[in-house]
Amino acid sequence: MSRRDIGVGLLGLGTVGSAVAKILLNKSNKLAEQIGAPLVLKKVLERDVNKARLDCFASLAMTDRIEEVTTDPEVDIVIEVIGGEHPALEYIKQAISNGKHVVTANKEVIAKHGYELLSSAKEHNLQLRYEASVGSGIPLISPFQQDLAANDISTIYAILNGTTNYILTQMSQEGWDFSTALKQAQKLGYAEANPANDIEGMDAAYKLAILSTLAFHTRVDPQDIYCEGISRLQASDFRYAKEFGYAIKLLAIAKRDNGTIEVRVHPAFIPEDSQLAKVDGVYNAIQVEGDLAGDLVFSGQGAGASQAASAIVADALIIARDICHGANYVPELQLNQELPIKPMRDIKTRYYFRMNVADRPSVLTQISRVLGDNSISISAVIQKESDLAAQTAVLVIMTHPAEEKAVQKALEEVKQLAVVNEVSNFIRVEG
Amino acid sequence: MSRRDIGVGLLGLGTVGSAVAKILLNKSNKLAEQIGAPLVLKKVLERDVNKARLDCFASLAMTDRIEEVTTDPEVDIVIEVIGGEHPALEYIKQAISNGKHVVTANKEVIAKHGYELLSSAKEHNLQLRYEASVGSGIPLISPFQQDLAANDISTIYAILNGTTNYILTQMSQEGWDFSTALKQAQKLGYAEANPANDIEGMDAAYKLAILSTLAFHTRVDPQDIYCEGISRLQASDFRYAKEFGYAIKLLAIAKRDNGTIEVRVHPAFIPEDSQLAKVDGVYNAIQVEGDLAGDLVFSGQGAGASQAASAIVADALIIARDICHGANYVPELQLNQELPIKPMRDIKTRYYFRMNVADRPSVLTQISRVLGDNSISISAVIQKESDLAAQTAVLVIMTHPAEEKAVQKALEEVKQLAVVNEVSNFIRVEG
Repeated sequence: MSRRDIGVGLLGLGTVGSAVAKILLNKSNKLAEQIGAPLVLKKVLERDVNKARLDCFASLAMTDRIEEVTTDPEVDIVIEVIGGEHPALEYIKQAISNGKHVVTANKEVIAKHGYELLSSAKEHNLQLRYEASVGSGIPLISPFQQDLAANDISTIYAILNGTTNYILTQMSQEGWDFSTALKQAQKLGYAEANPANDIEGMDAAYKLAILSTLAFHTRVDPQDIYCEGISRLQASDFRYAKEFGYAIKLLAIAKRDNGTIEVRVHPAFIPEDSQLAKVDGVYNAIQVEGDLAGDLVFSGQGAGASQAASAIVADALIIARDICHGANYVPELQLNQELPIKPMRDIKTRYYFRMNVADRPSVLTQISRVLGDNSISISAVIQKESDLAAQTAVLVIMTHPAEEKAVQKALEEVKQLAVVNEVSNFIRVEG
Repeated sequence: MSRRDIGVGLLGLGTVGSAVAKILLNKSNKLAEQIGAPLVLKKVLERDVNKARLDCFASLAMTDRIEEVTTDPEVDIVIEVIGGEHPALEYIKQAISNGKHVVTANKEVIAKHGYELLSSAKEHNLQLRYEASVGSGIPLISPFQQDLAANDISTIYAILNGTTNYILTQMSQEGWDFSTALKQAQKLGYAEANPANDIEGMDAAYKLAILSTLAFHTRVDPQDIYCEGISRLQASDFRYAKEFGYAIKLLAIAKRDNGTIEVRVHPAFIPEDSQLAKVDGVYNAIQVEGDLAGDLVFSGQGAGASQAASAIVADALIIARDICHGANYVPELQLNQELPIKPMRDIKTRYYFRMNVADRPSVLTQISRVLGDNSISISAVIQKESDLAAQTAVLVIMTHPAEEKAVQKALEEVKQLAVVNEVSNFIRVEG
């Protein structure tokens, strides 16, 4: 071994960056043993000079100029933990064009630009690793790339966003409404001040784009993913879900079906005895089905600085080990097919409807006729909570599998019925 | 790339071997795309010539002489799926000394001889991979080696044997006794005619030896693992477990504690709302806690030919890819510490006791005095099922944490009490 050590440049010293820096400083012996050479933090990009003054980081060489990291000849691996699309994307490109291997936790950059970045890294004979971008410290990218490589993957059902899962857990367990649960999540630091990316499902969609690209060997852009958030769920939906034996989760779903793929993120009823239904709080879980391995579930804390740092440092160790051993293998994104994405209107699943209706005997007959005319058959009905004064009642319907377009058309027609005051909610039912 | 193809030699054409052969034959294009060269089955060792006559294997070159596989210059990777210690061990050694990379699913060989085999492979600059040896198609070896590499692992709690988990699930759900559940498992092919290795816990102990060696970077021999099977569990234990809010599972436990490790396999009460309690039937699940990644759970079908083949072919793909790319990195077993194994008598946990006692008022006083004298305090008691004719009752006790040696001593003393007819069972309580 001719090398003295492996140099790391760190972009960002926020919560995740600080966790990475501490591991590299505090576990240096353990890490060196694993790769056969020290892994040394050579330079840190951070605009906030106060962070440089923290005792624990006193030994670090800090800079506020990206070029000082990406052109430092002692830096072999650049770790990007700034987050967000820009300037992280440009920084990663700059690192690659300067011959640096890259490790990133950036789901948005990888979901939107992973293909071009990986191709560019490959051209430069460099590695770009992103294990922390999905599920944080839960091993997922490497199982998909390596351990499941012989499998044809048929489905992924996943809880990929801890913030929304915490909110849904509170709504279910405490009977809270959405805004109360969101405020609590913000208070505990589980949700950001601007929580849109999480609660509208975009965060989960980025992660699903990454996983489904790996699973199906086809390019899945986040904008191709149907995406619906959790803000229209109400406390009563959770009560009815329980009554029918279901939990409500924000599911990220990817399915292969006859040469097309379904990719969608939306709230869903799932059977309360299913493995994902039991994943509560900020935990994530990913259920994947392969033709050989069968059903596998990976679960753990899908967020948190030390969890992300666990995956980031593991990625850096793989690269460092390869550098030490002169290995020139660069994993590439194998996109060997172009599978069309099934339009949302063509998907087929079961549905839950909650309506406010007139409290009259003929109501169910009229509604079931409209549904029947659209080839939707009812599997269960609950009618209750009559408001005697207003002469209204709540009607809850579960259907057998039906096509999304038929359901949307039927709901429009149902709304026109004189006996229907409001279609209060509809939620897809999976599993 | 100078190579035309990567050659595989397969030792054994039983259920797992046949599954591997079929994948190599039927998925050859998919596999070739991933490594950049065809992965070709060059020779198969199988004594039963009738198997060679099966249509699907007509194209295979079969032999009943091991040398014809291990010395074949066209064979790069030898896959061993014979199982058992001998002659598999000798065959693997022969493959390595003839310069062949090895993939094996053999937990017994790896648990007992992994260190020497991996060292020998390393000396020859060859890879020896064994992902299928634990958890079958569930990715475990590579997460422990790679993804968790920066973590200090504190505990592993695992259900590692599908046969016993199926039996325990039936006993719990159907109220069956052990022998009925075992017969059913044998009828369904989940248990072998001689089920000793599974039901006495040795199979789980082999797998725990492999995982704990990886987790703690210290050598754990299967014979160092305390091992207790499930045959002394009775239907009534499951009823009481439920009453207290627990499930009973055959747990494989590895813990790091103050410079020592605990490694043990035995039936245990675990809280019924814990993740492992919900793992039923032939499924396996592994819960591991790292200082960075936190609590992770991996679950799936821990047995089955296609599941094992999934992991075996994935291992072969990694090696094939490395051969194609001229990578010379050979993963090694990093044993950088020697942690003593805590004697079973020194472990501390909670306990469940079931006793048959005289149906008299002073009984509990006498028993609790003996327990108290041994520093064991009671957390809950159930007394029921009085047999009026015999004037006996069943007394069930749950304790607070206590030392194993104190518990064993106390139970001996309890047995001497005139009011105690029998100590019917004791089971450790975890979590």
